Amino acid sequence: MASIDLNSDLGESFGPWRMGDDLAMLDIVTSANIACGFHAGDPEGILKVLREAASRDISIGAHVGYRDLVGFGRRNMDPSSAELIGDTIYQIGALQGLARAAGTTVRYVKPHGALYNTIANDTRQAADVIAGIKAIDPSLTLMALAGAPIVDQARAAGLAVVCEAFADRAYNADGSLVSRRLPGSVIHEPKAVAERMLRLVTEGRMTAIDGTDITLEAQSICVHGDTPAAISIAHMLKDEFAARGVQLKAFTSMDGGANRG
Amino acid sequence: MASIDLNSDLGESFGPWRMGDDLAMLDIVTSANIACGFHAGDPEGILKVLREAASRDISIGAHVGYRDLVGFGRRNMDPSSAELIGDTIYQIGALQGLARAAGTTVRYVKPHGALYNTIANDTRQAADVIAGIKAIDPSLTLMALAGAPIVDQARAAGLAVVCEAFADRAYNADGSLVSRRLPGSVIHEPKAVAERMLRLVTEGRMTAIDGTDITLEAQSICVHGDTPAAISIAHMLKDEFAARGVQLKAFTSMDGGANRG
Amino acid sequence: MASIDLNSDLGESFGPWRMGDDLAMLDIVTSANIACGFHAGDPEGILKVLREAASRDISIGAHVGYRDLVGFGRRNMDPSSAELIGDTIYQIGALQGLARAAGTTVRYVKPHGALYNTIANDTRQAADVIAGIKAIDPSLTLMALAGAPIVDQARAAGLAVVCEAFADRAYNADGSLVSRRLPGSVIHEPKAVAERMLRLVTEGRMTAIDGTDITLEAQSICVHGDTPAAISIAHMLKDEFAARGVQLKAFTSMDGGANRG
Amino acid sequence: MASIDLNSDLGESFGPWRMGDDLAMLDIVTSANIACGFHAGDPEGILKVLREAASRDISIGAHVGYRDLVGFGRRNMDPSSAELIGDTIYQIGALQGLARAAGTTVRYVKPHGALYNTIANDTRQAADVIAGIKAIDPSLTLMALAGAPIVDQARAAGLAVVCEAFADRAYNADGSLVSRRLPGSVIHEPKAVAERMLRLVTEGRMTAIDGTDITLEAQSICVHGDTPAAISIAHMLKDEFAARGVQLKAFTSMDGGANRG
Repeated sequence: MASIDLNSDLGESFGPWRMGDDLAMLDIVTSANIACGFHAGDPEGILKVLREAASRDISIGAHVGYRDLVGFGRRNMDPSSAELIGDTIYQIGALQGLARAAGTTVRYVKPHGALYNTIANDTRQAADVIAGIKAIDPSLTLMALAGAPIVDQARAAGLAVVCEAFADRAYNADGSLVSRRLPGSVIHEPKAVAERMLRLVTEGRMTAIDGTDITLEAQSICVHGDTPAAISIAHMLKDEFAARGVQLKAFTSMDGGANRG
Repeated sequence: MASIDLNSDLGESFGPWRMGDDLAMLDIVTSANIACGFHAGDPEGILKVLREAASRDISIGAHVGYRDLVGFGRRNMDPSSAELIGDTIYQIGALQGLARAAGTTVRYVKPHGALYNTIANDTRQAADVIAGIKAIDPSLTLMALAGAPIVDQARAAGLAVVCEAFADRAYNADGSLVSRRLPGSVIHEPKAVAERMLRLVTEGRMTAIDGTDITLEAQSICVHGDTPAAISIAHMLKDEFAARGVQLKAFTSMDGGANRG
Repeated sequence: MASIDLNSDLGESFGPWRMGDDLAMLDIVTSANIACGFHAGDPEGILKVLREAASRDISIGAHVGYRDLVGFGRRNMDPSSAELIGDTIYQIGALQGLARAAGTTVRYVKPHGALYNTIANDTRQAADVIAGIKAIDPSLTLMALAGAPIVDQARAAGLAVVCEAFADRAYNADGSLVSRRLPGSVIHEPKAVAERMLRLVTEGRMTAIDGTDITLEAQSICVHGDTPAAISIAHMLKDEFAARGVQLKAFTSMDGGANRG
Repeated sequence: MASIDLNSDLGESFGPWRMGDDLAMLDIVTSANIACGFHAGDPEGILKVLREAASRDISIGAHVGYRDLVGFGRRNMDPSSAELIGDTIYQIGALQGLARAAGTTVRYVKPHGALYNTIANDTRQAADVIAGIKAIDPSLTLMALAGAPIVDQARAAGLAVVCEAFADRAYNADGSLVSRRLPGSVIHEPKAVAERMLRLVTEGRMTAIDGTDITLEAQSICVHGDTPAAISIAHMLKDEFAARGVQLKAFTSMDGGANRG
């Protein structure tokens, strides 16, 4: 039977400010990317969502980001290697500590926002994040953009990597994401989203924005939870998968879910 | 042979701003209280000092503080229990992660500044810090103010506690520190500092500010490193101890150095 | 004809995080207490709300707070006098600059959260806030808790003071607010809220929680906008006032609205 | 008689952390670029240095930077236009408020670090900073890198611009600074620094790193104060200027010191 991992960004509230509906998403996903305090998340709130995730046996990832709270880690920055390595370790360590207190453990690392996009292609910053992960715990898996150069870079460095596709995003013929600035980059129709992801899971293929058929390696699918519409799409996806016999399963519990290449 | 632990606050630089002479202090102390990022310390700088400490086989403590960078954790605050528990775990976890990357481990927790002073007597905040430590790692020792109520509170809660005296501070007859606002609260004469500490180590006794003789349990002595004068005093103390046959030794390597009461 | 000022806390979003429905409240209130960046508010968001307020000719106040973002300025702190004076001036100056860019001006200062509550009674911190206001612009009015010691303290220091009542809060017989920790401290029934405020505006009197009748000086009424329920209450209040011939009018445009005592 | 302005970055301490020797520099410079809290500076410390500057009648500039404290504003960032405009206004406004409290006024704006370097050539971010300045006070002068595109851009937008040269930096033949990563980029010999600056002031010319002779418009010279060596160079420069009859004078007090182009 085919199976796939669903992941989402959680724990992104800060102090008195709410973001997303963490409890609703925890009933859908199999992997939770949890904010570590640099782009979002405060210790009390992170601990709460970790406890909820632990009670549902959901796989935990460290959602490390640039140190830019007001910009929510979405602005490009150019930290030095020593800074980025240190920031990566610090954030993972903090989440590991909170996870321990919640009776669970951090299994993977998924960089956030501008850091995620930058390291997909920027080999210097990618190497820093990889070095940070290896320095704190080389058994952690890196979750990265399917088809991006970092996938091979991290595997060559000895890290396990799990590739993720984005449920509601259009792809170029070369397997990269269509920029959000271009028309058609986001797919809003839930049914279309579900059909695309089903095909990706069962065939490993997808139709690119120019109509060509492409191959994409993906062991996980990212769904968003920051709007009611996003949660509906995630729900629909889960239901469609169930209806078609695709099992939702954390990649951490799959054989070869993440591989060292 | 008598032995004693010397501890100091390190890793308190932040970004481009330097504080103290960490390398000089690492050549004197046996235990290093290392900032965790809330009152001071950035990941890159913390990692550097951890590597230096690791290479000298110095015992590492998490110097957790209130989240108040501009105030350097020296201003009283009243976080909720959930906030303080979360903040304690987060900071310890972050330092544990950096310590792992540096090839060492966190052995104890010493709260900083206003948090240190508050929990000495405030049982609610003390309970929160104790709960935070136990939630992440109940084998961590708490370093606390000799003679303060928190010592018994933490031991009753099952934590090992090591008591510390302050090398250059005067004591009241009841074993509490003379407030810095009062004359005579700080002892500036290096020779006098050394004499007092030698007697404390060898006899467990000290002369209070009113001339009475008091008993104080102390397995560690705190020395400061933020001024050249402070480093001189620390050096003098180390030399005097050596001359009188008192061995400097991390409390973590002593039998019964920290006790569970 | 009787008239009264309605004020509310606005501009409290931060980066990607929303708080309250600023546009809805701007259609109700006559005075807007606008966050200055220390407890909430980022420059871009503050500027936007200032422009909306300016276009509606609403009176602008600087909602200065403790420097505690994650705690939303709701945690007690003990800044030194030099710190609190500096923080007060900095926040007012920043808001004045943004107000100028938005084509409006800051008319008053209303401290926020824990700072508001503290200075109501703590004469040292009150004196610091007063000194800060006077140092940057002695023509600014202070908005303070009706009946609290700071009202006389600020007037004695030469500041104009406007007193505010809280629409949905119960009062003790001595004119102080019933603590939120006690039952009955918050009045949830919109009709009751409106009746109480109408009587306060027209008679200057109110029924305390013990049934006694008290006198309260209030030139402004604070309404909240952080929940849909709060906005409904504010709307109801506005409508009731209109129905009974009470005019809503910024205190800054009333004769003797704020007085120097 | 020839005259020139000397400027330096001041007020860059933060909380307990010191940076530079502000008092020593205030005895040398005629213009003070004062940190506004985003890359460095806290309100209490900024107010202190403003008072010292005011008592010496030194011209005050707002040293606005990216919101990146740990990186000291030295890391490239890509804020949106709305963010950068807001951040510029906020920082200038805050400094204007503190300046008013100190009995002085802000006369110019000098962006800091990565923001300074970025806007020299990046017309989008340059336009945002220019828009921010014009929105709060179009009479403020912009201090910018001599020879950079922003000089004409700002003048075309209606701002007065004063051009600055760096005392201890080598220049390329096209008038740009030699990158710090290249050998010879920094001139350490005080005598050489003084000779170069004297020629620049009296002839408007300088020898580039490749030996060619270049023309540079400069109404101000930037000197650093973060090390004892930097302060010595600044002193030497001041003395040499005095010996050769070059008067130090704030550009704000010169005819045509800053011009609108």
